[in-house]
Amino acid sequence: MTTTLDFWFEFASTYSYPAAIRIVDAAAARGVTVRWRPFLLGPIFKAQGWDNSPFNLYPAKGRYMWRDLERICDGLRLPFRQPAVFPQNTIPASRVALVGLSQGWGEDFCRAVYAAEFGEGRNIGETDVLAGVLSARGQDARAVMEEAQRDDNKNALRAQTDEAMRLGIFGAPSFITADGELFWGNDRLEAAIEWAIR
Amino acid sequence: MTTTLDFWFEFASTYSYPAAIRIVDAAAARGVTVRWRPFLLGPIFKAQGWDNSPFNLYPAKGRYMWRDLERICDGLRLPFRQPAVFPQNTIPASRVALVGLSQGWGEDFCRAVYAAEFGEGRNIGETDVLAGVLSARGQDARAVMEEAQRDDNKNALRAQTDEAMRLGIFGAPSFITADGELFWGNDRLEAAIEWAIR
Repeated sequence: MTTTLDFWFEFASTYSYPAAIRIVDAAAARGVTVRWRPFLLGPIFKAQGWDNSPFNLYPAKGRYMWRDLERICDGLRLPFRQPAVFPQNTIPASRVALVGLSQGWGEDFCRAVYAAEFGEGRNIGETDVLAGVLSARGQDARAVMEEAQRDDNKNALRAQTDEAMRLGIFGAPSFITADGELFWGNDRLEAAIEWAIR
Repeated sequence: MTTTLDFWFEFASTYSYPAAIRIVDAAAARGVTVRWRPFLLGPIFKAQGWDNSPFNLYPAKGRYMWRDLERICDGLRLPFRQPAVFPQNTIPASRVALVGLSQGWGEDFCRAVYAAEFGEGRNIGETDVLAGVLSARGQDARAVMEEAQRDDNKNALRAQTDEAMRLGIFGAPSFITADGELFWGNDRLEAAIEWAIR
């Protein structure tokens, strides 16, 4: 029997960056198979009455988050650079991620998107940046981005976001075990894995 | 030279409960002296536009928090019971805490307040409950509560809350090292201690 853990992430989520890097070894070490599930926080935040990231709406919290993220990345020896644009338009990258995840190169692509955004401070909402990430992984950027824009793929991302909301997800990263236990935050990754295998 | 860590907490803060229990051994094990600093989140939340706990304002987040707290308490073998009233009026207990901290029995009192509130689900905003916690620790409840209501003590709590806001504190528990590094959340206790002694 395989133990699985659903990893719900959004490319605008800063703490999803270290989580996306850490989850690979952390899950493998405990024999847990991870399902990567990109979704959009925008509609969920909107339902809570927020039209922006809470880190922008609440500046003290935002200042703290950037410093905290920097410390976490330092501890993991992960590159960190605060992007000038935050949050970014993550819809194109999320659609591409769905295509990639169905073709076996999605997890690597997702980590590369996070590295570009929060490791190099680039704007992954820009077509050129996204195409660059794809090309660097040997993908035909133009073909993939066209496929990502197909209606069935757009609908799949919408459906996944609806599912996240239905599951009670209110932030990212979130982890959900096979028995429905929800864990929120990069700092809950280990607890989620331990719950999954108990 | 003594290494100190400021522990900023609010009796309405759910995650401050496990932090107040854990910090004793965690700090002692690393030779760190903790300064207990009660403050009020109400004025800080009000400045952010919130007239209630974010866990009530954002129900999905609130549902998650109670479940998460229950899991954390289970892991620590700490009693947990969700109080019927949340958040509670924490002004009387905070004023008493200041008196107790100046007289050497404050830390024990603070842990007992958290245990009554989140371990037994009682309302620490009620005079009887607060008096019971004091009496159980051998204090003259009536005399202490009178002292807590003196103007200089009320002003001291106000000043401490102003200081918290000035330091960029936006939630509890928060930990601040001697060199001014801010850590937020029960899950950042170990990181704060390691920072303090590096």
